[in-house]
Amino acid sequence: MDGLSPPSFVDVLLAKKRISPYVHRTPLYRYPLLDQLLGAKVLVKHENHQITGAFKVRGGLNLISQLSKDERERGVITASTGNHGQSIAYASMIFGVKAKVCVPVNANPGKVSAIKLWGAEVIEHGRDFDEAKVYAEELAEKHDLHFISSGDEPHLIAGVATYTLEIIEDLPKVDVIIVPVGGGSGAAGACIVSKTFNPGIKVIGVQSEKAPAAYLTWKHRKPVESKMETFAEGLATRAPFMLPQSILWDKLDDFVLVSDEEILKGILLFLETTHNLAEGAAASTLAAAIKLKEKIKERKVVLVMSGGNLSVENLKKALLFKGKRVILNPD
Amino acid sequence: MDGLSPPSFVDVLLAKKRISPYVHRTPLYRYPLLDQLLGAKVLVKHENHQITGAFKVRGGLNLISQLSKDERERGVITASTGNHGQSIAYASMIFGVKAKVCVPVNANPGKVSAIKLWGAEVIEHGRDFDEAKVYAEELAEKHDLHFISSGDEPHLIAGVATYTLEIIEDLPKVDVIIVPVGGGSGAAGACIVSKTFNPGIKVIGVQSEKAPAAYLTWKHRKPVESKMETFAEGLATRAPFMLPQSILWDKLDDFVLVSDEEILKGILLFLETTHNLAEGAAASTLAAAIKLKEKIKERKVVLVMSGGNLSVENLKKALLFKGKRVILNPD
Repeated sequence: MDGLSPPSFVDVLLAKKRISPYVHRTPLYRYPLLDQLLGAKVLVKHENHQITGAFKVRGGLNLISQLSKDERERGVITASTGNHGQSIAYASMIFGVKAKVCVPVNANPGKVSAIKLWGAEVIEHGRDFDEAKVYAEELAEKHDLHFISSGDEPHLIAGVATYTLEIIEDLPKVDVIIVPVGGGSGAAGACIVSKTFNPGIKVIGVQSEKAPAAYLTWKHRKPVESKMETFAEGLATRAPFMLPQSILWDKLDDFVLVSDEEILKGILLFLETTHNLAEGAAASTLAAAIKLKEKIKERKVVLVMSGGNLSVENLKKALLFKGKRVILNPD
Repeated sequence: MDGLSPPSFVDVLLAKKRISPYVHRTPLYRYPLLDQLLGAKVLVKHENHQITGAFKVRGGLNLISQLSKDERERGVITASTGNHGQSIAYASMIFGVKAKVCVPVNANPGKVSAIKLWGAEVIEHGRDFDEAKVYAEELAEKHDLHFISSGDEPHLIAGVATYTLEIIEDLPKVDVIIVPVGGGSGAAGACIVSKTFNPGIKVIGVQSEKAPAAYLTWKHRKPVESKMETFAEGLATRAPFMLPQSILWDKLDDFVLVSDEEILKGILLFLETTHNLAEGAAASTLAAAIKLKEKIKERKVVLVMSGGNLSVENLKKALLFKGKRVILNPD
């Protein structure tokens, strides 16, 4: 990240202008059953309704639309567990750029299909995101392709930050925004926008305790690598990205870890209360809200449903979830 | 339905004005995987994103907002398998009216919870919708409540017709609209609006072959009662409603039956292609489109995803569906 600066609030406004023709302005909906469950005024930011089924596309469009003529002609390559790859593939299709996406072997098949459908070439390589990323960097070098980092990239952060503009437009008095953290660009964007409007808005990050690299890096204020064993591929990175981290160190209010069981319960509860399909990363926000129930009591809380690209396999796991259930009782 | 006239197009425009402050304007989204599956340009009207998770609320709001002072003070009663009940409950809450909803025993528990949550009293009675309806009429008589028919009611038809205004606003060149039929108010509304704009737009109804009363009544142009054995409660009526039927006789272009297995496959395919949770009635539109594949080839086709209130039980059934799979292959 040498030489990379965090995007400014103005960069976010410029990103909004750039990407608006190509993305949905997603809704922020309230669900009485969630209010009841959490004892707060709860709203869901529906990035699962976004083009490609995830918030990431806002970043890809902001980045690809600003490539130089030379970069467009060389073509781009990136690594992804799925949603970032879809984002780059979709944006490349829109702007007529050739794209290659390295995904780990055994990536979410629905996400892989979608990347192909948007016209990008998929290269399956490595056991996890970080191995796929190393391979993508090698290929970029070898074939003179423009490499896109999925995390250390100001244009991606400015792009994904635009959903927080919409949150605050729809709910100016928001108290708390809970955001899933994988590489951290979503949370970094939420911080930049929220704190500009009102430093009192609390931004809280969530990660799986089975893939806590970003959490540990934030907590210890130095790069920490960690295990990567969560089923929630949107939360799965082994090594931290230092550009979003530098923003999180400065602005993030809190960061919580949840278990994969709590995430599965979150998927099931989101299904029951909102009838929306949330992928693991998205459901981690509800898991965190349950954990923070006392802290967020009676506050206006936004859960960022970052994506809906849950595999049928993981949906089955969530439906078979047998842990302690939260009983929803409207009587 | 003595003395009831079908609503006019102007009634639909008036309904739109009346209900707009209280409903979402739902999106019409295109999904490349559905295009590929059906060989057509396919768009989904997302009434599953609507308040209460279903299109019905448009009708309830249009009706309850027009009650006389006397009717409001007496309170209302209706019968429902769930979504109409939610609609009346929600609208009654908005307009400060006391509401009772009779549901069959073993109704979809999520829908029943939601009816209570919107503040209506739930009365469980009878084996199916028609038995619950008879009981609701008895209670209306006994306690001097205003009885609301879920089908023979012009205000409901005018209200639910508003989603078709939105479809045509978003896709003026639509060729085909596929609509699930339970009582028939949704399809009747779609006909009134479509044919006013352009008689060339084809409106096609779908019902389960396990609950074909509306289909048989349409086909034979006389009231036919039939069995009611489908799991898809939104399609489940034993006796036809003659007001919507009179509109369908005049304007509906085609009516297809699909099996419950095809509906389950539709739920699974909607999950895989759109990552949306469709309830049985909503998924019947995709089942019908697959059946009509040759007819709709290369046309602009709208599938009305009428609601997303699928029970976890039925979602499990769909995920365990082992019938002949349609293979989605983006390569």
